[in-house]
Amino acid sequence: MSKKIFDIIKSDLADLETALQEAVKSPVDTITDIGNHLVKAGGKRLRPAMFFLAARCSANFNLERVMPLAVALELIHMASLVHDDVLDSAATRRGEETANAKWGNQLAILAGDYLFAKAFVLVTENGYGERVNNQLSRLLADLSAGELIQNKEIYRASCDIEEYYERIAMKTANFLAISCQLGGHVMGLPEKEVQALYDYGYCVGMAFQLTDDLLDLTGDSKTIGKPAGNDILQGIITLPAIRALETSPDREELLSIVTNRHMTKADLDRALELVRATDGIEFTRKKVEEYLDRARGVLPETIPEDVRTAYVMAADFVAGRKF
Amino acid sequence: MSKKIFDIIKSDLADLETALQEAVKSPVDTITDIGNHLVKAGGKRLRPAMFFLAARCSANFNLERVMPLAVALELIHMASLVHDDVLDSAATRRGEETANAKWGNQLAILAGDYLFAKAFVLVTENGYGERVNNQLSRLLADLSAGELIQNKEIYRASCDIEEYYERIAMKTANFLAISCQLGGHVMGLPEKEVQALYDYGYCVGMAFQLTDDLLDLTGDSKTIGKPAGNDILQGIITLPAIRALETSPDREELLSIVTNRHMTKADLDRALELVRATDGIEFTRKKVEEYLDRARGVLPETIPEDVRTAYVMAADFVAGRKF
Repeated sequence: MSKKIFDIIKSDLADLETALQEAVKSPVDTITDIGNHLVKAGGKRLRPAMFFLAARCSANFNLERVMPLAVALELIHMASLVHDDVLDSAATRRGEETANAKWGNQLAILAGDYLFAKAFVLVTENGYGERVNNQLSRLLADLSAGELIQNKEIYRASCDIEEYYERIAMKTANFLAISCQLGGHVMGLPEKEVQALYDYGYCVGMAFQLTDDLLDLTGDSKTIGKPAGNDILQGIITLPAIRALETSPDREELLSIVTNRHMTKADLDRALELVRATDGIEFTRKKVEEYLDRARGVLPETIPEDVRTAYVMAADFVAGRKF
Repeated sequence: MSKKIFDIIKSDLADLETALQEAVKSPVDTITDIGNHLVKAGGKRLRPAMFFLAARCSANFNLERVMPLAVALELIHMASLVHDDVLDSAATRRGEETANAKWGNQLAILAGDYLFAKAFVLVTENGYGERVNNQLSRLLADLSAGELIQNKEIYRASCDIEEYYERIAMKTANFLAISCQLGGHVMGLPEKEVQALYDYGYCVGMAFQLTDDLLDLTGDSKTIGKPAGNDILQGIITLPAIRALETSPDREELLSIVTNRHMTKADLDRALELVRATDGIEFTRKKVEEYLDRARGVLPETIPEDVRTAYVMAADFVAGRKF
């Protein structure tokens, strides 16, 4: 995200990097090595950022108190990416070698398991209460189930719009929602504000994933780090393609390509052409705007002005992002 | 285990099967399917059994109260086996198709993640307290780290005896120890008894894993469900082989075989012959007996006689087991 949005939590995020490096230290050298590699590979740190902003809604904000939970959120995200990269046999992420490319699938799977566990170790030893522990475990269950649904449906194009929304809610929106919610909860904000922060995170999360899915179709490899159409190539049908399958005059041709595990580059280009000829991309852009409008609208009146500004800018950033 | 040992917890274990089936039910059909397959494939249920026995040391034993935690212990074990089978590309376990063979590696990895998460969901929503949540997350961290060390070292024969003990402690002994400990803790036994139960579980766990490793060298495929020497074939060096590498006059030959990723069936047979020619197997058998003696010795005086008898018989079973 742009530096400006992050000004209010800039030092929180700087401290997060140190805390992440601390958290992946293990008596087992390979775990420390994999962990350090993952931390250094970076990322948007969107979940901890949303979490810190929510915690900063409280006048009693205490960085030391919230840090272990911020680390746990990022570790869960990191571990799920490690497993994702194994599933996809991905060689790079954000221009860096993936854990599976560098250490092999076996160690990558186990390192992912370890990082999930480490997230729970951190949270359960810092006395946030069982409600927080429970929410974090539900989050991981939903995340895994969402990924599982997506993987089960590859090359099937069987997903309708409602199922798609449910899937990205489980995978992404729910995670951002809980990140916001926990920030408010741990700092003792009133339940109504906590709920509003949850709703904000949910809407931004939906918009974020929709934008991800759009960029996969409209971005170029330089900005998004992978060639356009990667989702279709991997058999994943996202909203623009689902919409195109509903409205395209060449529906049958599109369907035969996206359900073909052995599609060629020419097939893929043709599929992209067919999707772009429909209103699928425009339809998805509108959905992004709808979610972001809702996100801006649900922000409680009572939160500090600087946090509100940051949250509004975060929503603007999601709308405009190119990577 | 023999039915007699289980008499005192027979109905607990019967109820466990129902609770396990309930726990793997999910709105996502594939998760339910994989979960049911795993539950039906069975297993020794050793961790819940140790846990129930410990809980039954209390006069206030309450099955309903302890069941979710018993389920969580078995789910963590089950999930780790699912990931193990992916790592080993195993096609069968206990004569049943593995999840990876039936559903593919991708869904198996995600189903494992889901089951880990589900274990934590169950525990955190039943108010066992943060100490229990924390111990369960540490358990999973150790389990993953132990597996990771084992996988990192394959075909290296770099492991010395102390490292081997540490690895099987992380993988197995720790899990049984915590299963016993939690049973006592949740039912409110005095701290001293809880610690003794932990020690018992630890020693039985060490003996159990050592026996597993012995059976891999001495069992035949009919009784253990896989051909003898499977560990060596997969590059895993266990105590009998470590001892043989220390004492065999043909040390160099043995080393060159066990570090060869492309060993033939004839190589493997020769390695087994070399190990069996040393005192490696006898040395390991003695260690098993030492651990079981310690296990029987640490059982607190104060526990009910029927539980004590069951625990002693469980130790005898480990010593004598052929599968």
